[in-house]
Amino acid sequence: MTWKLTKQNLDNPSLLVDESLLSLGNGYLGVRGNFEEGYTDSFQSIRGTYINAFHDITDISYGEKLHGFPETQQKLLNVIDGQTIEIYLDDDRFSLFEGEVIDFNRHLHLDAGFLDRIIHWKSPSGKEAYIQFRRFTSFVTRELFAIDVKIEPISHVDQVRIVSYVNGGVSNFVDKDDPRVASGHAKRLNIIDVKKDNDYSLVKNITYKSELEVACVTSTKIEAKQYTYDSQTTNSHVEEVYVVDGRNPIRFTKYNVYTDTLRHGQALFEQAVEIQDNIKEKNFDQLLTVQKQYLNDFWQTSDIEIDGDEQLQQGIRFNIFHLIQSAGKDAVSNIAAKGLSGEGYEGHYFWDTEIYMLPFFLMTNPEMARSLLLHRYSLLDSAKERAREVGHTQGALFPWRTITGGESSAFFPAGTAQYHISADIAYSYIQYYLVTKDDVFLQEYMAELLFETARLWIDTGHMKDDQFRIDDVTGPDEYTCIVNNNYYTNAMAKNNLLWAAKAFQIYSEKNKESLDVLVNKIGLSEQEVKEWKDAGERMYLPYDETYQISAQDDSFLSKKLWDLENTPKDKFPLLLNYHPLTLYRYQVCKQADTVLAHFLLEDQQDFQTIKNSYDYYEKLTTHDSSLSYCVYSIMASKLGYDDKAYRYFNETARLDIDNTHGNTKDGLHMANMGGTWLALVYGFAGLRVKDTGLSLFPALPNEWNSLKFHLKYQGSLLSVKMSQNGVTYTLLEGEELTISHRGKSIHLELGQDVKIA
Amino acid sequence: MTWKLTKQNLDNPSLLVDESLLSLGNGYLGVRGNFEEGYTDSFQSIRGTYINAFHDITDISYGEKLHGFPETQQKLLNVIDGQTIEIYLDDDRFSLFEGEVIDFNRHLHLDAGFLDRIIHWKSPSGKEAYIQFRRFTSFVTRELFAIDVKIEPISHVDQVRIVSYVNGGVSNFVDKDDPRVASGHAKRLNIIDVKKDNDYSLVKNITYKSELEVACVTSTKIEAKQYTYDSQTTNSHVEEVYVVDGRNPIRFTKYNVYTDTLRHGQALFEQAVEIQDNIKEKNFDQLLTVQKQYLNDFWQTSDIEIDGDEQLQQGIRFNIFHLIQSAGKDAVSNIAAKGLSGEGYEGHYFWDTEIYMLPFFLMTNPEMARSLLLHRYSLLDSAKERAREVGHTQGALFPWRTITGGESSAFFPAGTAQYHISADIAYSYIQYYLVTKDDVFLQEYMAELLFETARLWIDTGHMKDDQFRIDDVTGPDEYTCIVNNNYYTNAMAKNNLLWAAKAFQIYSEKNKESLDVLVNKIGLSEQEVKEWKDAGERMYLPYDETYQISAQDDSFLSKKLWDLENTPKDKFPLLLNYHPLTLYRYQVCKQADTVLAHFLLEDQQDFQTIKNSYDYYEKLTTHDSSLSYCVYSIMASKLGYDDKAYRYFNETARLDIDNTHGNTKDGLHMANMGGTWLALVYGFAGLRVKDTGLSLFPALPNEWNSLKFHLKYQGSLLSVKMSQNGVTYTLLEGEELTISHRGKSIHLELGQDVKIA
Repeated sequence: MTWKLTKQNLDNPSLLVDESLLSLGNGYLGVRGNFEEGYTDSFQSIRGTYINAFHDITDISYGEKLHGFPETQQKLLNVIDGQTIEIYLDDDRFSLFEGEVIDFNRHLHLDAGFLDRIIHWKSPSGKEAYIQFRRFTSFVTRELFAIDVKIEPISHVDQVRIVSYVNGGVSNFVDKDDPRVASGHAKRLNIIDVKKDNDYSLVKNITYKSELEVACVTSTKIEAKQYTYDSQTTNSHVEEVYVVDGRNPIRFTKYNVYTDTLRHGQALFEQAVEIQDNIKEKNFDQLLTVQKQYLNDFWQTSDIEIDGDEQLQQGIRFNIFHLIQSAGKDAVSNIAAKGLSGEGYEGHYFWDTEIYMLPFFLMTNPEMARSLLLHRYSLLDSAKERAREVGHTQGALFPWRTITGGESSAFFPAGTAQYHISADIAYSYIQYYLVTKDDVFLQEYMAELLFETARLWIDTGHMKDDQFRIDDVTGPDEYTCIVNNNYYTNAMAKNNLLWAAKAFQIYSEKNKESLDVLVNKIGLSEQEVKEWKDAGERMYLPYDETYQISAQDDSFLSKKLWDLENTPKDKFPLLLNYHPLTLYRYQVCKQADTVLAHFLLEDQQDFQTIKNSYDYYEKLTTHDSSLSYCVYSIMASKLGYDDKAYRYFNETARLDIDNTHGNTKDGLHMANMGGTWLALVYGFAGLRVKDTGLSLFPALPNEWNSLKFHLKYQGSLLSVKMSQNGVTYTLLEGEELTISHRGKSIHLELGQDVKIA
Repeated sequence: MTWKLTKQNLDNPSLLVDESLLSLGNGYLGVRGNFEEGYTDSFQSIRGTYINAFHDITDISYGEKLHGFPETQQKLLNVIDGQTIEIYLDDDRFSLFEGEVIDFNRHLHLDAGFLDRIIHWKSPSGKEAYIQFRRFTSFVTRELFAIDVKIEPISHVDQVRIVSYVNGGVSNFVDKDDPRVASGHAKRLNIIDVKKDNDYSLVKNITYKSELEVACVTSTKIEAKQYTYDSQTTNSHVEEVYVVDGRNPIRFTKYNVYTDTLRHGQALFEQAVEIQDNIKEKNFDQLLTVQKQYLNDFWQTSDIEIDGDEQLQQGIRFNIFHLIQSAGKDAVSNIAAKGLSGEGYEGHYFWDTEIYMLPFFLMTNPEMARSLLLHRYSLLDSAKERAREVGHTQGALFPWRTITGGESSAFFPAGTAQYHISADIAYSYIQYYLVTKDDVFLQEYMAELLFETARLWIDTGHMKDDQFRIDDVTGPDEYTCIVNNNYYTNAMAKNNLLWAAKAFQIYSEKNKESLDVLVNKIGLSEQEVKEWKDAGERMYLPYDETYQISAQDDSFLSKKLWDLENTPKDKFPLLLNYHPLTLYRYQVCKQADTVLAHFLLEDQQDFQTIKNSYDYYEKLTTHDSSLSYCVYSIMASKLGYDDKAYRYFNETARLDIDNTHGNTKDGLHMANMGGTWLALVYGFAGLRVKDTGLSLFPALPNEWNSLKFHLKYQGSLLSVKMSQNGVTYTLLEGEELTISHRGKSIHLELGQDVKIA
């Protein structure tokens, strides 16, 4: 059961959640787990098909608009619907909300990458059949979303009628009762072409403003003894009708191929038809085999095996599966906060990628990590523009939320003010370099990105009393906004600045000529590099003598303490129940802030300060953000709080499966999914990658027999197995490798197990 | 020339400004100085008639809406147009933008309260006439807006045709090119009745959402040898047409009477007709005589005479005139930031009233001050509600901008966060009490208002290290928002808290029984009163040892210094050219903040600290707000910076007349107008009213021969004349009075001049 997720819900709130849980995706295309045949009228469903980064531009309204507020926002669009298939047993339309559902199961197959739905149904008038749906979005042919249906009548049925649609008349989700999704901007696509052409149904849409186009070209196949076929084209959709003899089993297959102008040039239909032609040779089962092979390869190095808890084993596999489903793997896309599983956060990319999800890819699929980093690099110019808009004379200010680079945050205190995202991106580049030692990457991308973000910090902060200080920014904790010297921000900026100077040094040593070209291009002076180093070294990291902790910011510790214990449960999350000013006035945290900095940059403080800080901030943290538990789990591991590490980990592993945040219907919490992996590998296994190399500090939870995973590091592939008796390291690829285990150096050679008790 | 403002402009930018400058009002009704006959199509004019507090409710859009953000906003409406009168000389329509304008003058008569327009015009075809318009909004019959036109053809004209309109098809101003006024919400009135009934044209409108109604009932009269009359009614307006023999002078008069459901019950037409009937006995000149008498009485005690500078004399009279024109004098209205002269700030009431305008009324027309305070008292319940919305468990949080009590600010960092408005209102009550010693007022209104605002501070702040601290509020300086321990806020809250305790004491001594009723009503405990006193006494007022100044807030002085000297002129006001985060990061002030606290509560600091602070903050202040100069002038007077006092005063006196802020077209800067008076009386004359009584510290600018004004104080009327030789005090009403002059006690008796060299 740990390789699949089974669902049997038919009630509405559960089905909405299942739509997200059972969503399929491949980083390009995503389809929610909707029923092909639809729902009854009163049923709420978010029927969605998404293409990563495929968006329109909408206006932002402000009651009062100040200088530098973004005027528009990007919005991921629900595109052409290829899901819909209606089935009639004689005159009875198949629906799970009528007649009798004798048996009903859905399985998301994490190992094989498909979703099935197995039904035994009797219609109101007594027509009975077994019906099985299977669907997948292909990792190998990313444009493909295929559905296979088997219908086996078991009562007398004269005719089975199958009606399949490709529908361009789509909108984004609107909920009149929820102001967050009732704001309009739902309909953002015009239909520009609908036709039937030989074997294909073809539909093309264009967005209102961004002028992006998307096409869906669909082919259908039937295996049946006897049938008639007809089709019909309207303004908005193509409809295909198969009428089949009901006395024998029937198999119907639908291949939807999606192309868009972000990736496929202008000839979208032609491109899609070409793809259709390429897959024509294989049937559904063969295509599914290719899918399984892909996932088999993936799991070989990406799986984490927990022996001792099937629930958690299922949780981590489910989360890893959705990570690979969500990650953009091309030059125009990244990982949205909800992946491709829903419309929450409008398909925007946040710091979630760099801080919570990238490490998984970096340590298991570094080429995917590289693709994500290159996508950020492609936004560097717009980040420089954004810095100018806000008033900076130099540097790059990355937008808090975006798709193609424009700031899409409409509330700057918890948006644009989160300057740390620029240092977070820099951090992810540095981590990539530490793991891969890829000097070409450093020269081609990393140096410039580090230089421009370092420039931002110089322009934002200032030297006072021999300390470099950064005023009026917001840290990760959105319950305290616009503060001076946020510990997290300053710590990350320090790292950014010092590494910018270091990258300059490395670059200079490796390839002075190429560096000179860059220096010339961005008008860099050696004086600036000195300033970065100086500012980095003198960066002020607030410390409180009384508590002997890192202070979250200059004033946090002087505020009132929020009485979390006596806050009624229905007042959480606090942000939905208190005005921001009230929240700002208290020592109360939405999520890990200083504690996160202590994880990412643990060498900036001594152990005791980190421990004291954890003890202090833990009491004030609501974990109202799903980005919090994993950090608290990792740091509990580091500090020897094993029970806490385990308890917090438990909150992450099944957060969506168990819908503990109550909003999984709007999409999966991707950062938390990355966080589950972090809690296992950085937490229980104590992984760190630094200048000094790769180190582990394993501590297996008592509850488990073993924990096993793989790491890729500088071209090597390493297997790590933690059991109650000890740890076994095996170098599976690469000649040899020296790592650190609990502070001691270990030498590994290809194929040899090294066991440590 | 100091009793009138003359204008001869015919170009568009100037005429738009003149519309505000030459606006007429009486606190109830306001009419912009538009041309009766209209403009050419390409001309931009803000044609406006406003009734104080007559508003609709509009939705506020947020890109991201957080808990406690107001969902709606109130908006002052442009109501039924009674201004329009077209004149035709034979077939030539009179327009100042065609033909030849041989002579053209407009005069706003500050002494008599009317506007005239005197024209000698020749039409394109050579028809020539003298035309004179006069108009006033009556202070005595507040519903009345009357226009009188004399037409004297001086070439051959067969017929003069006069077409007079009452038009309900009105909207608020929209400027496509200015996002601040292009946001829609322009059309907010439906026409519900248009008719001609005997002598009257009647039009009635209703707002879209607030369901307020407004009516205009108009009568017209003509004095001419021979004429024909006709009228016509459409869906939106009534049109009256007089065709008159053109060989003799003609006089046409129009009486518009406005009633509204905020004041006149439901029978608006009947009420308006009754008012028409009441004024019927008097002709235009007689009504104007009544107006003159009213203003004569007003100026008797409200005028300030400056001997030595006609420009400034005109400026202060102009400003005082607009103060009396703008001030609401009934239970439902106050003074809008732009008075009734334009649509800027949507007719909202701010702290401007209490801190900048009320002192003028308090010291010259205390009954009007009382009316303004009672209007605020009527909003106390909604301020309590607002406090709950934001998250407070007790107290009253007055909205930053409002008409009927709902928070109408859509940007909380510079809106709701300005908690000081609650202490500002409390301050004005305390000042009223100090000037009037009105114990009935204390018992009926002031005590409750002080108690509820004191409760807010207790709930907002907290005790730490034996100091009472207030976190996360915004002071008057909007270039630094959401700060801890803003000096101004803490100082005003201290005063609020201590006076709440004091008012409890006084009330208890004067009328224990009545106090008990109040205590019971609001559930007050004696413990709370102790807490107020304690918090007030321990209030933390930030002080910087290095500079020996009051610190604007906990972190202001640690920020970067803005380089004002090298900021290009076109970057002012800064708020239109920099993102708020950039502004927040610097030591730069939009307006007086700490310096204002040092004016209002000068006894909280020693002289040297006040002087040091002034010197420090002056260098950082842009005066981008029009509320700044007057405070800097007053404090310069106090500190002996006579040149500066004079120079800053000069910036206030003619700010609108000379349009120095460039936006007078949107309405007059009422707070600055009050500030002009403050700079004269609190600045040059050094007036203060405290527990210890009334004191003056006169210092006449060298540039003037004398300065003369009146003060009302505890039932007495005092004349003060400052000349270069000394000061003369004369008690004009009241038996005797002891005041302080430059720190020395002076005893005054009725009718006797006391001269001090």
